[in-house]
Amino acid sequence: MSLAELGEFGLIARLTHHLESRPDVVLGVGDDAAVLDIGVGRQLVATCDAQVEGQHFRLGAASPAEIGHKALAVNLSDIAAMGAEPLWALISLLLPRGLAVETLDGIYAGMRALARRFDIALVGGNIAATAGPLAIDLTLLGSCPRGAAVTRAGGRPGDTLLVVGTLGAAAAGLLAAGGALAPGSVAPETLERARRALAAPTPLVAEGRALAATGAVTAMLDVSDGLAADLGHLCERSGVGAEIVAAAVPIDPAADAIARAVGGDPLALALAGGEDYALLCAVRPGEIERARAAVRATGGEAHVIGALTEPTEGMRVRAPDGRLTLLEPHGWDHLRDQP
Amino acid sequence: MSLAELGEFGLIARLTHHLESRPDVVLGVGDDAAVLDIGVGRQLVATCDAQVEGQHFRLGAASPAEIGHKALAVNLSDIAAMGAEPLWALISLLLPRGLAVETLDGIYAGMRALARRFDIALVGGNIAATAGPLAIDLTLLGSCPRGAAVTRAGGRPGDTLLVVGTLGAAAAGLLAAGGALAPGSVAPETLERARRALAAPTPLVAEGRALAATGAVTAMLDVSDGLAADLGHLCERSGVGAEIVAAAVPIDPAADAIARAVGGDPLALALAGGEDYALLCAVRPGEIERARAAVRATGGEAHVIGALTEPTEGMRVRAPDGRLTLLEPHGWDHLRDQP
Repeated sequence: MSLAELGEFGLIARLTHHLESRPDVVLGVGDDAAVLDIGVGRQLVATCDAQVEGQHFRLGAASPAEIGHKALAVNLSDIAAMGAEPLWALISLLLPRGLAVETLDGIYAGMRALARRFDIALVGGNIAATAGPLAIDLTLLGSCPRGAAVTRAGGRPGDTLLVVGTLGAAAAGLLAAGGALAPGSVAPETLERARRALAAPTPLVAEGRALAATGAVTAMLDVSDGLAADLGHLCERSGVGAEIVAAAVPIDPAADAIARAVGGDPLALALAGGEDYALLCAVRPGEIERARAAVRATGGEAHVIGALTEPTEGMRVRAPDGRLTLLEPHGWDHLRDQP
Repeated sequence: MSLAELGEFGLIARLTHHLESRPDVVLGVGDDAAVLDIGVGRQLVATCDAQVEGQHFRLGAASPAEIGHKALAVNLSDIAAMGAEPLWALISLLLPRGLAVETLDGIYAGMRALARRFDIALVGGNIAATAGPLAIDLTLLGSCPRGAAVTRAGGRPGDTLLVVGTLGAAAAGLLAAGGALAPGSVAPETLERARRALAAPTPLVAEGRALAATGAVTAMLDVSDGLAADLGHLCERSGVGAEIVAAAVPIDPAADAIARAVGGDPLALALAGGEDYALLCAVRPGEIERARAAVRATGGEAHVIGALTEPTEGMRVRAPDGRLTLLEPHGWDHLRDQP
């Protein structure tokens, strides 16, 4: 069925039928605005991120459910990087009139499955038609105890750098989708791991909250632009330098296999490839084991990759032979770079 | 300068330079998410609405500043319709790569001027490129005392219906822009009033808050789809009928003049034309003078247009000759109707 046949209010009814809720949702979808109960002594945390067809996804390369999953996942990752609890989502859709309703059903199914997993209520949204590509713009709200949000700005020289999760798999998935691989050069399950990392990343929500709860984390962000670029953001905002150890960077096994299959450098994928949605954080020296144990208790794994240094030292990588080279904070630019 | 030359981070720096803030903004633009302090005993109110080029505006027909103004104004109107205080905005932009940065500067200037007027802090956002039209998607957060938000669902038979503001001017502006008028048939200042109503509506924030604060309002919403359609929303959600008096509908003088100039019915413009961003509310009988005085104290004017009735009576209009006719809740459908 086409969207024009169903109409705006038919579509809203279809997409919001039996929507997930939470006890703190005083008023959800269907009025001028949602009303939400934020607990006493807590602060609100808010972020938004859009997924645009042709820029962030292609119908066909990812399933509709994966596209919906990712639209929520990238926002969950931002709330996780603050160490906050994600609670409520507003979904704004820009819809080409020719889009099949079934595609949108699939997108919502993927988004709602992830919402259920993290106990997120979909509390509002908007539908607009567009002559351009499909876009899913999501605003995610969460909360944290007063003063507990972890910013990018608190890192100090001497802090240990941790990465939670692995790096490079999404970039490897993009490489594989681009047809760079000879048939049979990489195992199918490895290809699928890389494809999934790109199409339906897992946000590290429990890990981010556990890290923040230790009180030992001085700065945190999610690795969405690539480790080099995001470490650059942390260093810039904290006014520090950094030294990381090449051999300690947690390269995803799929990134390793796919990079080798094209004669490339797995470390380069891990440093420059974006969209991993791992967490990068700085931890006060002496508290590193407590931080790692907190992540382990959630089922995740935190890897020590280096330390923050004085700002004058810049960002450097120590190679296996002991040599230090400068790390350029290159990453994806949404306006300069074409997908 | 083109967006590709400026780049994503250059553009963010340009647009967020010296951004408006508020004391309750703990952390604004520049981190993974914003952190906001919501007062004890208050509830959060959240809404989102997008403006898409070719659907909601045309570059040229409205100035960039007006486009930015409207993107915020339509969201302010939704928060006003809850009787809540608007506080914080997140702005998500979908940008064609060829867009001139100066156009975006103008859009931001209009948005920021309106933000200053209502003391709104711009606390976050997102930039994505698109192969399609320019879109400005805005999420607006506000708050109200616990339990004080006015929904669409509380209207009861016997309540008086009030409209704050005037109706039909935006539809008249659309009519005039479509070339329906003979040159010289309407005064230039009337044409400009209608054009402004469409391009840069004034959200009735103080009026909505003042009405909610009386405790006399049982249901409220903003008139964005047209009075007939929005009264239909109120009746459906409240489970009531309505009877309105044709002669009491506050038709905007520009709507009146432009409708007459094309030989049309001013009332039809007021009933079916959308985008007026007036407020429609139901008030408990006996409290109507108190509600009107509260609006007057803000500088606005509230017009009694009729009353809610039993649901079995449906929605009806009383003509000047005393006859009652059924009112069909027709309004704009973003997916069925072409702009």
